[in-house]
Amino acid sequence: MNFADPTVEQFFQTYTISNFTVSDDEKRVLFSTNLNGKMNVWAMDLPNGFPYLFTHTEQSCQFLKEDPNKKFVLAGFDHDGDENYHLYAVPYKGGNKKKLIEADKEEKYYFAHLNQEGNHLYYVTSKGNPSFLNGYRFNIESESEELLYEGAQGPTFINTVSLNERYVVLQQLLANTYVIGYLLDTQTGEKVTLSEDPERVHVFNHSIFVSDTELLYVTNDRSEYAYIAKYDISTGKHSKYLSLKEESVEGIEWHKESETLYLWTEKGVEDHLYSLKKDNDSPVRLDSPLTAIEQVKVGKSGQVYILGTSATEPTNLYRLEKNNKWRKLTENKVLGIEKEELVEPEVVTYPSFDKKEIEALWFKAKPEQDNGHVIFWPHGGPQAAERKTFRAMFQCILNQGYSIFAPNFRGSTGYGSSFVKLVEQDWGEGPRLDCVAGVEWLFDTNKCDKDRLFVLGGSYGGYMTLLLAGRHPEYFRAVIDIFGVSNLFTFVNSVPDHWKPIMERWIGDPERDKERFEKDSPVTYLSTMTNPILVIQGANDPRVVKEESDQIVDALQKQGTAVDYLVLDDEGHGFSKKENEIKVYKEILDFLEKHRVPGK
Amino acid sequence: MNFADPTVEQFFQTYTISNFTVSDDEKRVLFSTNLNGKMNVWAMDLPNGFPYLFTHTEQSCQFLKEDPNKKFVLAGFDHDGDENYHLYAVPYKGGNKKKLIEADKEEKYYFAHLNQEGNHLYYVTSKGNPSFLNGYRFNIESESEELLYEGAQGPTFINTVSLNERYVVLQQLLANTYVIGYLLDTQTGEKVTLSEDPERVHVFNHSIFVSDTELLYVTNDRSEYAYIAKYDISTGKHSKYLSLKEESVEGIEWHKESETLYLWTEKGVEDHLYSLKKDNDSPVRLDSPLTAIEQVKVGKSGQVYILGTSATEPTNLYRLEKNNKWRKLTENKVLGIEKEELVEPEVVTYPSFDKKEIEALWFKAKPEQDNGHVIFWPHGGPQAAERKTFRAMFQCILNQGYSIFAPNFRGSTGYGSSFVKLVEQDWGEGPRLDCVAGVEWLFDTNKCDKDRLFVLGGSYGGYMTLLLAGRHPEYFRAVIDIFGVSNLFTFVNSVPDHWKPIMERWIGDPERDKERFEKDSPVTYLSTMTNPILVIQGANDPRVVKEESDQIVDALQKQGTAVDYLVLDDEGHGFSKKENEIKVYKEILDFLEKHRVPGK
Repeated sequence: MNFADPTVEQFFQTYTISNFTVSDDEKRVLFSTNLNGKMNVWAMDLPNGFPYLFTHTEQSCQFLKEDPNKKFVLAGFDHDGDENYHLYAVPYKGGNKKKLIEADKEEKYYFAHLNQEGNHLYYVTSKGNPSFLNGYRFNIESESEELLYEGAQGPTFINTVSLNERYVVLQQLLANTYVIGYLLDTQTGEKVTLSEDPERVHVFNHSIFVSDTELLYVTNDRSEYAYIAKYDISTGKHSKYLSLKEESVEGIEWHKESETLYLWTEKGVEDHLYSLKKDNDSPVRLDSPLTAIEQVKVGKSGQVYILGTSATEPTNLYRLEKNNKWRKLTENKVLGIEKEELVEPEVVTYPSFDKKEIEALWFKAKPEQDNGHVIFWPHGGPQAAERKTFRAMFQCILNQGYSIFAPNFRGSTGYGSSFVKLVEQDWGEGPRLDCVAGVEWLFDTNKCDKDRLFVLGGSYGGYMTLLLAGRHPEYFRAVIDIFGVSNLFTFVNSVPDHWKPIMERWIGDPERDKERFEKDSPVTYLSTMTNPILVIQGANDPRVVKEESDQIVDALQKQGTAVDYLVLDDEGHGFSKKENEIKVYKEILDFLEKHRVPGK
Repeated sequence: MNFADPTVEQFFQTYTISNFTVSDDEKRVLFSTNLNGKMNVWAMDLPNGFPYLFTHTEQSCQFLKEDPNKKFVLAGFDHDGDENYHLYAVPYKGGNKKKLIEADKEEKYYFAHLNQEGNHLYYVTSKGNPSFLNGYRFNIESESEELLYEGAQGPTFINTVSLNERYVVLQQLLANTYVIGYLLDTQTGEKVTLSEDPERVHVFNHSIFVSDTELLYVTNDRSEYAYIAKYDISTGKHSKYLSLKEESVEGIEWHKESETLYLWTEKGVEDHLYSLKKDNDSPVRLDSPLTAIEQVKVGKSGQVYILGTSATEPTNLYRLEKNNKWRKLTENKVLGIEKEELVEPEVVTYPSFDKKEIEALWFKAKPEQDNGHVIFWPHGGPQAAERKTFRAMFQCILNQGYSIFAPNFRGSTGYGSSFVKLVEQDWGEGPRLDCVAGVEWLFDTNKCDKDRLFVLGGSYGGYMTLLLAGRHPEYFRAVIDIFGVSNLFTFVNSVPDHWKPIMERWIGDPERDKERFEKDSPVTYLSTMTNPILVIQGANDPRVVKEESDQIVDALQKQGTAVDYLVLDDEGHGFSKKENEIKVYKEILDFLEKHRVPGK
């Protein structure tokens, strides 16, 4: 029996899984997913593993934390993508959420820690200090809260809390690449820096207490790649604990029972997972089934739970069991299409204008599907990277015959901290020229005919898309911008309050750097933005506000450029509802189809 | 931490599971479910058991049958509840459905059998013979079809086909209580009756070939309860195989490898499951976790799969494993509410007007929720019964404090075939008086105060609701009719064509029985139908068409009765889409709340 080729609808049926947590006895996993079309929290009892609804919210979940006494589960939910997460509790066995701390719609709450007795909740809030945030300890029994610190200079978060609750580790963000760590002694009120030299630009990242006085933390201080260091509170001494060549440590977890450290690292476009027994010199690489790790939990039993994706596999949850084998706990996949039928990217490099090597992912459409067209995809962030993660949109577009080229231009993570910083106060020049070199390389290596290139990007990638469309229109057949920044002047003022302190280092000052802001704003190049363009925007987007898209759409329409504008009323910076995702994907594919060279 | 009481929304999160099938190697289960809000077919690989979408249809599925060569899966889907199922194939690994046999929107196709080579499909269709149906053999490879028989006198279905495909067993329906079996020899074209005396009213039900010449079948010929008989084709002899006291055999499955017969029976308000080894005298009762069995499959390995419910558990799939323990394969449950917190019904009996004992289910609201009101629920069918099955609506209403009384009035199944027949040509008298006796019994035993009774029913139950509302309005505070028959004259002509041959015995003839039809039609009692009423109807309902509700709503509105009318545009005789189900439940609860005695 013959069946037709897969349709785009089949790719829309994958879903998101995020923020899982595992109960102490490892008999229940909670996770947030839009398995039933909208984001809700689901539970799964092990070993059986058939999921069931835990709480019906239809909203994105920021975290899940089980009460050790099994009375409740803490969770954070926002409203239709506005990223103003508030703190809620849900009955331990599931049911309706109840607001734990009353909050205004505009306020943000970040969960930090629940003590082992389950009665002290540590959190950070924008309430009363929208730019720098304050930290609190909330007593769940008496419903009283205690101010721990007031953030200053940069938004300040609680990173971790010691088991005995005496010490609280803080992170003060001055830029994506400049984060200072502090140790707050709640007994004395004393606050000491955990960074050797707070004046030196570096990142103090993840930290964990391995005893009441010993702290392991991740930093890239005086290094291109993040490593693990140790701080001894009793002596005040720092020591290097573990570093890996050309790999940045992303996160650490401590398994007390076996005194084992688990760490995951970023190595270029892939993540690696390791374990390190106490007193062992070198970590053991765990052969993870995923190339992009989003979350790691180590159960009391020592089983390791990881959530993440690979280029050909949507988000799934795996468990490393005692037999040293990975068991897949979820079955998220493209409807009716095997992993092997999807496209694995090739990792390629090309030289940029200044001879710098740029790494890129080259997704080549399968020969039987290939229509000769290529999509140039500048990633978002920009201090992020295009990696071996699953994107339903990519695989769907590939299946329709378009190849995809995704360069990790300067500013991308995974290639050392100097490289990341190259985008700071230079959003539009170096990274753009890396993109231009990428386009030329595609043409030179015959990966793409000169008349068959599209550009498509979201967020910073949308910004780069618009900039390329304005400054290099000759390269592209048509342009797709998803919530991209169109104007740096308006953008720096419209971001969430607690982003503002870091805008100076990240982008610059609109008055001092007026000339550069003009040069690097897509709206400056309106007159040459003549390619057909599709603009997609979530109405509640708090990061790149709708005004960024509105203004460029208005201006382009006025000058007669062909603009399609799709606004999603109940979405933010991303698409959480399946029906919206489907709408967006279909619009993109229709737009590509309309503007590609007819025929195969 | 204190949480609020469960809300009605929590009950809406249960879902339907139907029509499962298990692959030969028992590594995959396919099932139809509205887990993600709409009916779709899902798969589940065992032992892991996390479900994944198999085909995205958003339509009800009538059957699922795997190709033994693992090239495709056959399935039947209708359109928005119209019950005009057509035949489709889906790639074995999942994907988009493709229509196997072209069909007009109005035509019906019933899958009957796929041979063990996977190339001959047996089906029955209304095409060309809408009242009596024809049977075909379709060659999947050559896409050619061969007429096997033309139905006559009554709608005729294919019941089973012998392994060598020589014999086809047919069922000719003359009434719900009168079904004749035939054996068609496709080699000779000869058709012999499988009923000892086809003139005697009886039901020839389920049948299976245990060898090329031995047939086991279920019948109630000359018995109040259905039993298993054997027919030997080579000798033409019938013999009794197995009967159980006061239990009706509902279905049988044969496990060839162990020569074991599995059977499930209806015993009053519960189902029982048994196994019987060949040459053993008496069956062994298998302690099923479900009180209402909807489907049974025996895997090649001998593991038994059952789908069904209990009063406090929504549809779940269980497997009886080799260790003789039931494993729950799915986790369908009320959100955040344990089975123990739901209401188990008490089985009660009361004497009717003619001293006949009527069995009923009495769902008593928990003391802490009880609001003193009772819902009188006449079940649908009418040749069916209210049994220990899960109804989210019941548990939701109970949780709001209403108790529910559900009598199995004459015409109900489970109490012998004579009892079932008592509703035939007497829809409105005997069964109604049983209901009246039930109401009086509720008052007499102080289960309900005289001013606290509602009546609510669907289909025939909706008819009975309307009839009680018209003839005994003094009993009820208010009335809820879900797609109920309002007028027997219009109803007998509006049912699906293949129902028409059985209408005579079931209801009667509108001309000959004009007087009775008038007496038993709810519309006759419009002037006394003065209670507030809520009417709910699916626009595509093919069984009780919308006209049945339209006419009574119009008439009631004209005379000034308070009527609320809710029409669901994309539903048939039932609610397949979660959003519609939620709408209906909320409407019912609001209506009850509005019309109950204020206060507790």
